[in-house]
Amino acid sequence: MSASTGWSGSATEILRVDPSVSFADVDTYAKPGFTGSKSDGKAWLGSRATDLRELQEKLYANGRSGDHRSVLLVLQGMDTSGKGGIVKHVLGQVEPQGVDHTSFAAPTEEERAHPFLWRVEKALPRAGQIGVFDRSHYEDVLIVRVHDMVPREVWETRYDEINAFEKRVVESGTTLIKVALALSKDEQRERLARRLRRPDKYWKFDPSDVAERGYWNDYMAAYDAVFERTSTEYAPWHVVPCDRKWYSRVAVTELLVEALHGFDLDWPAADFDVEEQRRLLRES
Amino acid sequence: MSASTGWSGSATEILRVDPSVSFADVDTYAKPGFTGSKSDGKAWLGSRATDLRELQEKLYANGRSGDHRSVLLVLQGMDTSGKGGIVKHVLGQVEPQGVDHTSFAAPTEEERAHPFLWRVEKALPRAGQIGVFDRSHYEDVLIVRVHDMVPREVWETRYDEINAFEKRVVESGTTLIKVALALSKDEQRERLARRLRRPDKYWKFDPSDVAERGYWNDYMAAYDAVFERTSTEYAPWHVVPCDRKWYSRVAVTELLVEALHGFDLDWPAADFDVEEQRRLLRES
Repeated sequence: MSASTGWSGSATEILRVDPSVSFADVDTYAKPGFTGSKSDGKAWLGSRATDLRELQEKLYANGRSGDHRSVLLVLQGMDTSGKGGIVKHVLGQVEPQGVDHTSFAAPTEEERAHPFLWRVEKALPRAGQIGVFDRSHYEDVLIVRVHDMVPREVWETRYDEINAFEKRVVESGTTLIKVALALSKDEQRERLARRLRRPDKYWKFDPSDVAERGYWNDYMAAYDAVFERTSTEYAPWHVVPCDRKWYSRVAVTELLVEALHGFDLDWPAADFDVEEQRRLLRES
Repeated sequence: MSASTGWSGSATEILRVDPSVSFADVDTYAKPGFTGSKSDGKAWLGSRATDLRELQEKLYANGRSGDHRSVLLVLQGMDTSGKGGIVKHVLGQVEPQGVDHTSFAAPTEEERAHPFLWRVEKALPRAGQIGVFDRSHYEDVLIVRVHDMVPREVWETRYDEINAFEKRVVESGTTLIKVALALSKDEQRERLARRLRRPDKYWKFDPSDVAERGYWNDYMAAYDAVFERTSTEYAPWHVVPCDRKWYSRVAVTELLVEALHGFDLDWPAADFDVEEQRRLLRES
């Protein structure tokens, strides 16, 4: 890794969604902002893991000491875009007890009996935690919209509901990092084909994954609507190309590190008399 | 690591609680069953991590394919016994999305308004998951008993309630691994003193930790009662010495690996026509 390798600027700025570019037209093989090769990226990830661990521990420590802040990483992307790999390789670097991970599958009967944000509200991270949503409330304006699972007038109102919800979440002290992983349709075919070549990967394959490819353009349009209507000042979207998995992991790590740096955290001061406790401990 | 280094037998058998030995008399610096040094232990942990990862992925894969089984690791131990470190170093090795971690702190007002097993029931792992309890329902017969937080006739009935509860959990397909970490009172003093020497560790220190040392013998007696009354055929207790942290991590890893091996898991077969899906994918 040469001295000049790394980020050419703030990943948060560089990756912010550009509303003039359709999701279908994103260069999914690009590595915006990162000047380096795959091996540089892996080395970077290793060294950033140390920063991420310390920042996470400080967030957790402050959370236990009355600081109400938290982080919520929202991961969206087409099938095989690598959401699980990001959870494993990025969040897997920090203390499991500081990470609150939720996968949003198709809603259960109980969940469907409630407003769509009900299950999301319940999964919000507590103070000091890094929450991770693998899929999220955005499915309620993505797959639901693409397949007309509810009438148009229902999903149409959801963008505003989401904005109001996220505003409240941010005001309560949670920094939202919304990431859309940009994958090409060809790369998705290759990744699905890999699952069909290996019997130990069959379980990851679902025939509906192939059927969904027929709706690719509808999904791209649904993502564009999401960006247009829900990329706000307080909770902007970031678009992360993911045809190169290593890059998407480096980029999400950087977004997390920058968000945590923004908290300007220090170790909480002792709320007890250190000398006195030392004496009591010696005598105990 | 020499060829003869490793486990001299089944960790599950070797570590099973011996009702004739009081918890206060356990050799907390021992490393029962493991023939090797600290560096051997670390090497062992590294190589076992690969097994653990594959077994966990198989459990998860089968859970998605209709297998209802899961694992629940219950970690109990005095303050500083290293429960958090086990979560980090043992469970941190596997896919975060396959691990369901719950820390049981003092119950909230809502939790206190329900029977003591209410919050535990809600935290049980779903099919295919490895659940981890950092403290558990056993606090309701440990700290609660030591400090008379409820009348004796209330906590007295809880042992039987716990057994009935755990029997039902096991019958539903969850393998329970109950681990009591055995720490010496002197080693606890040393670990607390370390927190008082480092400002970045002050947040982990609570003056009540020192005060609790005054009840050490009462806790040991409460643990003995737990072993006597709740170490059952279907959910036995294991006692893991933890004055040497590396050993306790090796031991808990081994208990997990043995439990997962016991499931005799294979990769789920494809429930679709692989050739047909390959063709559809090529055409998509």
